[in-house]
Amino acid sequence: MEIQKLAQEKINQKTKPLGSLGLLEEVAVQLCVLQNTLTPTIAKKRMLIFAASHGIADEGVSAYPKEVTGQMVLNFLRGGAAINVLTRHGGIELCVIDVGVDMDFGDNIDSHLFFNRKVRYGTRNFLKEPAMTFPEFSKAIEAGREQVRLAKFAKVSLLGIGEMGIGNTTSASAVFSALLGWSAEETVGRGTGANDLTLKRKVQVVEQAIAKHKIENADVAHWLSCVGGFEIVAMVGVLLEAAEQRIPVVIDGFIATAAALAAIKMNENVRDICFWGHCSNEKAHKRILNDIGAKPLLNLNMRLGEGTGAALAMHLVEAAAKIMCDMASFEDAKVSKSKP
Amino acid sequence: MEIQKLAQEKINQKTKPLGSLGLLEEVAVQLCVLQNTLTPTIAKKRMLIFAASHGIADEGVSAYPKEVTGQMVLNFLRGGAAINVLTRHGGIELCVIDVGVDMDFGDNIDSHLFFNRKVRYGTRNFLKEPAMTFPEFSKAIEAGREQVRLAKFAKVSLLGIGEMGIGNTTSASAVFSALLGWSAEETVGRGTGANDLTLKRKVQVVEQAIAKHKIENADVAHWLSCVGGFEIVAMVGVLLEAAEQRIPVVIDGFIATAAALAAIKMNENVRDICFWGHCSNEKAHKRILNDIGAKPLLNLNMRLGEGTGAALAMHLVEAAAKIMCDMASFEDAKVSKSKP
Repeated sequence: MEIQKLAQEKINQKTKPLGSLGLLEEVAVQLCVLQNTLTPTIAKKRMLIFAASHGIADEGVSAYPKEVTGQMVLNFLRGGAAINVLTRHGGIELCVIDVGVDMDFGDNIDSHLFFNRKVRYGTRNFLKEPAMTFPEFSKAIEAGREQVRLAKFAKVSLLGIGEMGIGNTTSASAVFSALLGWSAEETVGRGTGANDLTLKRKVQVVEQAIAKHKIENADVAHWLSCVGGFEIVAMVGVLLEAAEQRIPVVIDGFIATAAALAAIKMNENVRDICFWGHCSNEKAHKRILNDIGAKPLLNLNMRLGEGTGAALAMHLVEAAAKIMCDMASFEDAKVSKSKP
Repeated sequence: MEIQKLAQEKINQKTKPLGSLGLLEEVAVQLCVLQNTLTPTIAKKRMLIFAASHGIADEGVSAYPKEVTGQMVLNFLRGGAAINVLTRHGGIELCVIDVGVDMDFGDNIDSHLFFNRKVRYGTRNFLKEPAMTFPEFSKAIEAGREQVRLAKFAKVSLLGIGEMGIGNTTSASAVFSALLGWSAEETVGRGTGANDLTLKRKVQVVEQAIAKHKIENADVAHWLSCVGGFEIVAMVGVLLEAAEQRIPVVIDGFIATAAALAAIKMNENVRDICFWGHCSNEKAHKRILNDIGAKPLLNLNMRLGEGTGAALAMHLVEAAAKIMCDMASFEDAKVSKSKP
């Protein structure tokens, strides 16, 4: 951890009171360690949105109809969604990966932006059977890993992950309940805006799903394939590969955090490459981040997904890199240091 | 408030769950109202740093020696300070206004960036006498107002305010104690990193200053001139003028918030043009923002000043404007709305 110590010393010499850039300083040091340099750079940023449909949406767990998943993918491809606006604003490339949407998008789409890696037309209803088979699980993991290799080849220095999938807060809550051992009441929230009745149903669905799929010595892969979604599993794949390639990834909101928790449990090194984009307004998110020991960069009461929180936070990560490289030291600037 | 209602309706039609962009939506609506349009734009951003020295620094209230104020102004002019890095990163113009630094900067400086509006070589020690006379107060107010007129002429659509002045957390705490009626213990914090002894002295200084300058029916101008600083008063001038010109201003941290509170108490319309850059790590800041009803955009445990929090937050304000203009509606994108 020599580089970490050197990076900390370097930032302590900058013309500012010790520690006064707060979380930005921690980000800067983490970037130095990841890039193994005292002059970290964020040359190219890319956001990955994984989209998939959910069988569990048939159980009336969302405020929105199931077809919105496909409609929103089209919205991404036409450039009209929030994440399009925010990635353009932040100078971030955008890739949309269909890992399981129950709609065909044809070939008339910008292939540079879009990847057809459909595993299946949506997961199965996990109240009745496992959401996916093991071969499907592996395919989704691989779809995520592939994006990191492509990003590395394209010299991307900072990735973001986000998702689209009506029903996926239910899936994410089930993953949290399974991996953290928390009750459904503790992990379920209103998602895109569930009313009281829908919320009650979500809690019930998560409770029943956990009971149904419980086995002794269940590992992370068991739970992900039983109650996860293809987009969640693909994000796990991103994080596993990014940890191997040492590429930093900004995690978006509630759903992306479910993927991050799972990936960390599969490989503790994943923790080192994660930046936490924001704390969303989804009920359990704050407590979960706290439990993971994750410090979110933003706290704007957002709960949209698509990578929107991560996209905004990338500006802060890049700022941290520039602070490390471009700011003068007390010696450079001939500024007096604090009194002893 | 017709435009506010129309703006709220417009953002409710965007392809996202209702309210799911959180604070960004409130910012977007506020921009619409200020610019009197449903397509707000942030075409040009400018940060104003006001610098001044403080007589109260002679009382041993800071971790840093007094001469750092002038040294940091030179650092700003050479481009090596944190605010230089962050304004370059954010595409924000930077102006440095000397309203009372106890150092002469000569003429060999970039005049486009620097304004010599020195009222005096620092305030007086407010433990012994009022920090400034009324003519000096007026000069500092005018130095702030002038910057808004210049910004308007240059078609700046978003301003930020920050400051530099060793000793100015003591001055700001005194302003808060005076205007909010809070005890010195409640308003004083560690500033740039005061140790326990310095902290104790700060509390004592603020207590004594409030007792010394207390008069019946004291107005805001009385307190600002007795315990304020030239940079604080100049920021008040910015806000008073910006409220008249309807130009939005992003407030930086603890010291800028003292100016904002004073300006709001002088003219309630100031509230409408303020965006709150961040909640700093300075002890009292969170409670004060809460008391004002201000929702900070960032919460990164920063406590550096110079406008650094405001500079980072400007990216978010601009994002909000773009969301309002560029994001598709449910109708545009043919996306199904939520179930009734």
